[in-house]
Amino acid sequence: MTGATARRRGRPPRTESADTRDRILAAAREEFSERGYEKTSVRGIAKAAGVDSALVHHYFGTKEQIFAAAVEVAFAPAMNAPEAIADGPLDGVGERLTRFVFGVWENPTTRAPLLAILRSAVSNETAAAVFRRLVAAQLLRRIAAQLELPDAELRAELAAAQLVGTAMLRYVIKVEPLASADLEAIIARLAPVVQGHLTDP
Amino acid sequence: MTGATARRRGRPPRTESADTRDRILAAAREEFSERGYEKTSVRGIAKAAGVDSALVHHYFGTKEQIFAAAVEVAFAPAMNAPEAIADGPLDGVGERLTRFVFGVWENPTTRAPLLAILRSAVSNETAAAVFRRLVAAQLLRRIAAQLELPDAELRAELAAAQLVGTAMLRYVIKVEPLASADLEAIIARLAPVVQGHLTDP
Repeated sequence: MTGATARRRGRPPRTESADTRDRILAAAREEFSERGYEKTSVRGIAKAAGVDSALVHHYFGTKEQIFAAAVEVAFAPAMNAPEAIADGPLDGVGERLTRFVFGVWENPTTRAPLLAILRSAVSNETAAAVFRRLVAAQLLRRIAAQLELPDAELRAELAAAQLVGTAMLRYVIKVEPLASADLEAIIARLAPVVQGHLTDP
Repeated sequence: MTGATARRRGRPPRTESADTRDRILAAAREEFSERGYEKTSVRGIAKAAGVDSALVHHYFGTKEQIFAAAVEVAFAPAMNAPEAIADGPLDGVGERLTRFVFGVWENPTTRAPLLAILRSAVSNETAAAVFRRLVAAQLLRRIAAQLELPDAELRAELAAAQLVGTAMLRYVIKVEPLASADLEAIIARLAPVVQGHLTDP
């Protein structure tokens, strides 16, 4: 940190600080996605970011708070998604949600935090709580609220289950032929299923 | 081992050996389901089973082989499932597969190895390979073979994705309201979806 500050003395401290925060968050996403929550250490994140552990704690607090910050940042663009997904004809909502989810998984920038949260949430209760808060509460419940249907939350969760399960088998466990199947062919099969969960009587 | 043999001197060695193997496998399932593949050690399994690490290696070989044996044993009853699921009217296959999967998850004996394989497979390639071999190759492909439909394997995998995803959100990450929802209500919603994946034109 001192070295970096010295090197870039001409830059305003605020930008320097934002750079460092971003570098720590990027390192955290990388560590959490590769190792999962439990095996990731603050020291390991600090080392990967080229800073001192104390600085990581200073910016973000506990390991749990670093985890939340690391995955939340990546979910930030998705936070406008519920309105965008629910906006438009109701009979296209299944396809919009399906395309949104695969768009996130196919994007290398957002795949790492998704892997981090998935790998961590299946074996650690703290990470599972972050998953519930981000994916279930912020994303699914807001989609459900837009739909104004009975059992909307359960419907949104069963639709999400189809998409989460497909992503797991395709991108994480890599089951064939699903892992190599054409994305448009998968979307064509899943969009009506997701639509059915959300809006079938 | 010596102690146990001494204590039960009257019993035939074969039964003793089978008892020890079972105890090691039970300990392995417990360790793998709680810690995941990477954090589980042969020493930890041996300790939990009350035997020496060397004996664990003697019976099962490497950690990977112990993992495969631990989860395979639990999948053994399921190995007759593809025929049972595919046997009967084709329009009931979705419900039979759905009931089979939730039957396994709701059974405390089989839930532990399922958790073990799921937690391990998302963060470890060795465990993912075991998952692919057991679930994809032995279970899904055999169901697909019974159905004799075009794209049968991809269909079976997308059906499995709905069930795996629902199990993850309900039993592992515990997203509400899904985690507390009535099982029959869930089966009623999922069976037609699974059926559609398997048999819709």
